[in-house]
Order: sequence, then C-alpha cells, then structure tokens
Amino acid sequence: MFDLKSYLKAVRDPVDERLQHYLTVESPVTRVSQAMTYSVMAGGKRLRPVLCFAAAETVGGSRETVFPLACALEFIHTYSLIHDDLPAMDNDDKRRGKPTCHVQFDEATAILAGDALLTLAFEILAAAGTRCGLEEQRRWLLAIAQIASAAGFKGMIEGQMRDMAFEGKVISKGELESLHRLKTGKMIQISVSTGALLSGASKRQQQVLHTYAENIGLAFQVADDILNVKGDPERLGKSTGTDQIRGKNTYPSLLGLSGAESFAGQLVNNALKALDAFDNKADSLRAIARYVVERNR
Amino acid sequence: MFDLKSYLKAVRDPVDERLQHYLTVESPVTRVSQAMTYSVMAGGKRLRPVLCFAAAETVGGSRETVFPLACALEFIHTYSLIHDDLPAMDNDDKRRGKPTCHVQFDEATAILAGDALLTLAFEILAAAGTRCGLEEQRRWLLAIAQIASAAGFKGMIEGQMRDMAFEGKVISKGELESLHRLKTGKMIQISVSTGALLSGASKRQQQVLHTYAENIGLAFQVADDILNVKGDPERLGKSTGTDQIRGKNTYPSLLGLSGAESFAGQLVNNALKALDAFDNKADSLRAIARYVVERNR
Repeated sequence: MFDLKSYLKAVRDPVDERLQHYLTVESPVTRVSQAMTYSVMAGGKRLRPVLCFAAAETVGGSRETVFPLACALEFIHTYSLIHDDLPAMDNDDKRRGKPTCHVQFDEATAILAGDALLTLAFEILAAAGTRCGLEEQRRWLLAIAQIASAAGFKGMIEGQMRDMAFEGKVISKGELESLHRLKTGKMIQISVSTGALLSGASKRQQQVLHTYAENIGLAFQVADDILNVKGDPERLGKSTGTDQIRGKNTYPSLLGLSGAESFAGQLVNNALKALDAFDNKADSLRAIARYVVERNR
Repeated sequence: MFDLKSYLKAVRDPVDERLQHYLTVESPVTRVSQAMTYSVMAGGKRLRPVLCFAAAETVGGSRETVFPLACALEFIHTYSLIHDDLPAMDNDDKRRGKPTCHVQFDEATAILAGDALLTLAFEILAAAGTRCGLEEQRRWLLAIAQIASAAGFKGMIEGQMRDMAFEGKVISKGELESLHRLKTGKMIQISVSTGALLSGASKRQQQVLHTYAENIGLAFQVADDILNVKGDPERLGKSTGTDQIRGKNTYPSLLGLSGAESFAGQLVNNALKALDAFDNKADSLRAIARYVVERNR
C-alpha cells in the first residue's frame, strides 16, 4: 500500500525550502518580497509540485530535474490566489485561515506581489533551461510555452472571468465543466504533463497522463465544491457554505450532493484506469487521485 | 541624415499588425481579450519594439528574428501601464487620451487583462524559441530569464513600489535615479540588450549597447518629467502639472527645469558616445537617443 501521507510530507519540506530560496536569494527583503513570501508560505497542499514530481517519477525521471518546474507552478498558483482574492474580484479576506495578502499588506502591494510571482515563475523556468544540454533546452522552451498558454487568457484567466460572470446566473453542467477546466483544470493538467515532458516521457506516455490529469483536475474542483457544503471550516481554514450564499454555481447545486459525489468518484476511476498502462512507478499518481476526493481540506 | 520619422512609421504598422495577430489568433473574442486589445491598441510610441529592432540591426541582425521579442516587450509594457493605472495604484483614469482599462471595462477585467498580457509575452517568447535551431534556443532561454528578471520584483515591480512609497516624501537625486532605473530603465535596457543578444551580438557589442541603453533609459524618464511640466496636454494625451499636484519627486523638482534639461542632454551624450564603436548601422539608435529628449509626447 502506497503511503501518501509520508510522500506528501517528504515533498513538502524540500519544496518549501526551495520556494523560500527563490524568494530570498540575492535579494534584499522588500515590502513586495515580504508579501510574496507571506502568501507562498501561508501553507497549502503543494498539489502542483506533488503532481509534477509524481509524473516525473512515473516515467522514470528524477525529482531534481523538475524541481524548478515544481516551484514555478506553485508560484503561479499562489499569484492566481492573491489576485482572485482582491476586492475587485472575489473579495475574500481569509485564505488558509490567515488574512489574504491585500488585507495583511495592502491592495497595491498584493497586485504587485501577484505580478511578481508570475514573473518569477518564468524567470526560474528559463534559467533552469539555460543550465541544460541542448536537447533538454528545447523541452524547457516547450514547457514554458505550454504553461503560459494554460495560465493565460485562453486558460486560467478566462476561467476566472467566467467564474465572476456566472455568479448568480443559472448555467448548465457543461458550462460549469468548461469553467473549471479553464480555471483549475488546465494548470493541474500542465503540472502533470510538463513534469513528464521534462523527464523525457514518450508521446504515448504523455497522452495517458493527459487523460489522468484531465480527470483529476475536474475531480479536484468537484471535491472542493463538496467540501464547501459539508467540510469542517476549522480543518479547511476557511468558511463553508459561502458558495450558496454567493449564488455560485457548483456541482452540488447542479447535481445534488450525492450526484456530485458520484460524479467525483467516476472522474477518479477514469483517472485510475488511464494509469493501467503503468507499473507501480505510478503508485504515487494513483494515491493522489484517491486523495483528491477523499481529502478533508 | 537618418530619417527617424519614416523609421518609426515603418516599424509601427507591422508591429501593430503582429500585436493584433497574437491577440486574436486561434482565440474567440472574449471580454478579457477585448480589454487586452483595447489597451495594446490605444497607441503609444512602441519605443521598446523600435529599440529592439534598432539594436538587432546595429549588430547585423534581422527584424524578423526579433519580431516576437519586440511584441512581447510591448505586451509587458502595456500590462505594466494597466496595473499602474488601477485605483489601488496611481488611480489614473486617462491614458493616451482615452479612458484607462479599468474605466473602460472594470477593475477585475483590467487586473486580469494585465495578467494575461504578461503571460502572453512569455508564451510568445518561448514559442519563438522552440522554432529555432539548437544554438538559438539557448539565447531565447537567456532572453526570457533576463526579461523576467528586469520585469520582476528586483526590477520594474520594485520600481513601482518605490514610486508609490516615495510619493509626498523628500528624496535624494540618487534615490530618484535608482527608482527610475528600476521602474523604466531596466525594461528599456533589456529591449536593447535582448534585441542584440538574439541577433548574435558579441560580448563587447553587448557591453557597449548596455551603456547606451542605461543612459537613454534614464534620459527617457527625465524627459517625461520635463514634459509633465512644460508639455502640451493635447499632444501628450494626458494632463500636465500632475506630478507637482501629487507631490511626486521629479527631476525638475529636484534639479530645477534647466538643471533637468541639461542632465537629460548629458545622458544622451553618454549614450551617443557609447555608440562610437559602431558604424552607420547604429544610426537608428543614434536618432532614437536624440528623439528621447526632443520628443513632445
């Protein structure tokens, strides 16, 4: 039986250390770097780094190769949270049990801290690429282009636009799905696929992992919606029931709670089935798929 | 005599066309893409693309090679303007004679449009790199890392933080200079140096161009401050006298108007002197250096 708890713990500390390193190396402490560090170090599951490592290991790659990628993905994730929390967007004042960046600092600093984390992500990726051999350099360029595309106005950013536009409106399950594929799905998927790409995955392996990642990306969001209904606010570090108050479209609101739960289960099964092509090297990815819907925070 | 007016015009149209292309290719029109297009197409001098082309030509490179770079630099510039104009930052409601992005659309859309332009810039750069030969790929990775560093929390973003922090405070000429080197200087400098780098410039050529770009970057800001005092609001497309009203530290406020003018002239002379190492291929860069302080908008 794969011990996911130990795996997550073994990833977490070195990732945190490296994130901290990128934020402080050769740079004096400034207000904006403090805000960046505050939000990056506020906790979080480090799901994207974990997926990236697990994908690398599944195709026989090493954690060290994809470490800069793992950190860049986490920085992009944090930037998106900081900006989404802003008063002009979701206007959230708590995140992971702590004041959000614009509450702890101020709005201007939060906007710039987000901008800076996004920019730093690309700096780290490109710098890592320059340290590689010629063939690997090409892969880093591909990874940068794919990450930027997934995070950009045809991906994550469009997802956030739709999330705001749909608030209080009646939408279909298809619209909700496309919203989530854009808002969180693409970046989760890219965490897996670039982790594999930089580890020299074959075309076939990449396809399989793509199917896996698409399914767990959506499952993650469905589970998030379910947690907003029946999760423990203490464990989650944020209030529950907020989606309903805001008139947000969620899977429980569209499918009912048990409908949403069985949909999440089906997505995880799809993800696991895709992994049949791999041996026990994919056990970490399998355990993550189950964790995505079984987690309580 | 180098005809800068024709040169600027000859650059402008194809650059605008390519910018438009990147914003619309394979993507449906969305609210966020409209906001991006609105701000990118609001005009502007396209100084960064021009510098990038001129630097490429100075070292014997071609415009076509650096075209994606020129556009990426302009997108990053536009993103920085959109975010700087936000209510939480400089709270400007006019830019280039038109309502700023958050006034024309809304604050959330403006924040995301800025985010998306920054992200798109890196996508374009990385995608351009993947289409090159192996040796050139390395240069694109270097360029991406350098651009991200110049735009990031140790560069442009720190410049904006200081600009806000210094408002209404008495600062020294040294502090003002370091603010501007960060806020606008580094990105102007990088426009020249990456244009040269991607065109295969030698180490020595890069050093010379670095000196050139450092000086015109600062000269540009000094001239901007002077225009805010004695420029024509009609031509500028924005109000003048605003720096004084806001209690902004400027070169005219620190050195007096004539002191600021002679400082700008000295910087341009430094820039021109650096170019002595080049033949008439650098005439465009020479003309730009003069234009930076002689312009009226």
